[in-house]
Amino acid sequence: MAMKRAGVSAIRALCSSPNFTRHAHSTAGSKKIVGVFYKANEYAELNPNFVGCVERGLGIRDWLESRGHQYVVTADKDGPDCELEKHIPDLHVLITTPFHPAYVTAERIKKAKNLQLLLTAGIGSDHIDLKAAAEAGLTVAEVTGSNVVSVAEDELMRILILVRNFLPGHHQVISGDWNVAGIAYRAYDLEGKTVGTFGAGRIGKLLLQRLKPFNCNLLYHDRLKMDPEMEKQTGAKFEEDLDVMLQKCDIIVINTPLTDQTRGMFNKERISKLKKGVLIVNNARGAIMDTQAVADACSSGHIGGYSGDVWFPQPAPKDHPWRYMPNQAMTPHISGTTIDGQLRYAAGTKDMLDRYFKGEEFPLQNYIVREGVLAPQYR
Amino acid sequence: MAMKRAGVSAIRALCSSPNFTRHAHSTAGSKKIVGVFYKANEYAELNPNFVGCVERGLGIRDWLESRGHQYVVTADKDGPDCELEKHIPDLHVLITTPFHPAYVTAERIKKAKNLQLLLTAGIGSDHIDLKAAAEAGLTVAEVTGSNVVSVAEDELMRILILVRNFLPGHHQVISGDWNVAGIAYRAYDLEGKTVGTFGAGRIGKLLLQRLKPFNCNLLYHDRLKMDPEMEKQTGAKFEEDLDVMLQKCDIIVINTPLTDQTRGMFNKERISKLKKGVLIVNNARGAIMDTQAVADACSSGHIGGYSGDVWFPQPAPKDHPWRYMPNQAMTPHISGTTIDGQLRYAAGTKDMLDRYFKGEEFPLQNYIVREGVLAPQYR
Repeated sequence: MAMKRAGVSAIRALCSSPNFTRHAHSTAGSKKIVGVFYKANEYAELNPNFVGCVERGLGIRDWLESRGHQYVVTADKDGPDCELEKHIPDLHVLITTPFHPAYVTAERIKKAKNLQLLLTAGIGSDHIDLKAAAEAGLTVAEVTGSNVVSVAEDELMRILILVRNFLPGHHQVISGDWNVAGIAYRAYDLEGKTVGTFGAGRIGKLLLQRLKPFNCNLLYHDRLKMDPEMEKQTGAKFEEDLDVMLQKCDIIVINTPLTDQTRGMFNKERISKLKKGVLIVNNARGAIMDTQAVADACSSGHIGGYSGDVWFPQPAPKDHPWRYMPNQAMTPHISGTTIDGQLRYAAGTKDMLDRYFKGEEFPLQNYIVREGVLAPQYR
Repeated sequence: MAMKRAGVSAIRALCSSPNFTRHAHSTAGSKKIVGVFYKANEYAELNPNFVGCVERGLGIRDWLESRGHQYVVTADKDGPDCELEKHIPDLHVLITTPFHPAYVTAERIKKAKNLQLLLTAGIGSDHIDLKAAAEAGLTVAEVTGSNVVSVAEDELMRILILVRNFLPGHHQVISGDWNVAGIAYRAYDLEGKTVGTFGAGRIGKLLLQRLKPFNCNLLYHDRLKMDPEMEKQTGAKFEEDLDVMLQKCDIIVINTPLTDQTRGMFNKERISKLKKGVLIVNNARGAIMDTQAVADACSSGHIGGYSGDVWFPQPAPKDHPWRYMPNQAMTPHISGTTIDGQLRYAAGTKDMLDRYFKGEEFPLQNYIVREGVLAPQYR
């Protein structure tokens, strides 16, 4: 696999063809690889498959070190004195995750003179300044598909939790109460409701497949219509105009990446046009929403319930308004990091490292930036 | 519709044929109907479709009174001085619900000299002493099917809540924390897990249909094998031996009625033979479980999570151990009383009253006791 930044220097140094560059790099010897993961502390020992934490570092240390590479893992990712910052100047590969995101800014990219490859262990690379990465000729890749099932399942759980008004009932149980009416007056079946997904990529499609037997009215908006077979399989109807779709929905699910176009797009004005009492599930990215507009609409009741696992920033500060708004069913960023998901994205990251060492291509769908060129959906 | 008790008196009085009895009863003039529902208090006004509460009494008062019947509704159902007790001696029809169960004991049945019909607005009539009701020649009927979708959806929600370890994450949010590891170490995908339903009647089948796209290993145990078409549709495998099935399951869902055979059957011994860390969802009846055995197994970790909306007794007292056991995702008895469910069971109850007044049969599947004869599954 050719790396543009390295390629450029190689060309300068050796006047080599791009092809030669690729091979030169695939045999370039020992690499310094840094991984940033969340700390598991006492939880690490509780499950041998809990590989996505700093303590296990995806379970690839022995494999990397036996091949002569250096592997540093840390959870300490913020501020000028953090552990990550120390390794920026000489690392070749940086592995990050969306769950405990190391923000890879233009400044960090500039300082990282040896950097060739940014790998996201999971899906979602918006914690990386993709434009800066592209300009520097880097490659950014994810383990596409690694947690799409995890996230789709989680979205369906959140839809049900909101529609059926689960949390007030659970809170009654732990506080010693019993008041069925206080739950039932706003508890509904999912059956018969209109559910729309904004985005019908890998996760959106899996969600629609799982929603199919619930006998809902399923809608989707995306840049492209799904192929007729998938439309038939899910029974979902394509809506060309996003806002027209949103205004029909009892339940809206966000399944679109964070881009310049989607950042902050659920603002006060757009929310005010949604059905009163609309339920919103967002496991995509917190910054797609205007934080305060969501909190205000939950307080007024215009949004009847909001659930998701994504925030901006992450970790969510103690005073983040979504912690305190009514009718929220929020969690920390967790949906893609189930144990099953971790095993998949650890395997996918290892596979890409292996291909990188061998100078082989990654699976095409994994590329977000390929040797300085952004994937179409990020342009 | 003939009522055995009334029929016996009618025969004695008039030497009528059963056929004549039925007609005599269908034209017997004004009836006293008592309904026992939960109180909604301030919640009643918040939703015009909230018909299942004492304040709305299924929305059938005008209809009943315009036909000359007397309609009393109350939430006061327990103890010798309660409102219900006052009406026992002269009521003809008693409408109850599983959500706020009026326990219809042999003693109450004996006192209810005019009683002909016990209607359960919802599904599940184990709050009625069915043997005593049968011996008294009564008819007991439910609105079969009225909330099967509601309960099946709710079960799938609870499966996902347990498998994905939702609640610890949500508790972090409301307590100002952020610790992904503390959730992730025991969060899994549902995909690939073995899920077994004990009971594959109406609710169990709907659950299996909804589980189908999750790519689980689906098992079921029931008295009878499902028809091959339904087996194919759900992909679920029949397990003839209940205990053999239970021991294979990562997740067990209880979908069997409470009977003499099922009461307390999940006791310490049976639980000890389940997989360590098994997840259990029970929206059937609380008394199918040995309360303390479940609490102990949740504390030891042998049960990895327990969720349901049924308790014994109901309302659950403040000191019920399931309120305090770890890894529970309990709620009050709510799954069948969504607004959609209420509208269905209110309509079904009205339909049966109408048929009763007209001397017509009920939909056959609604009968639990028909003129003194127990339905097969309760024998």
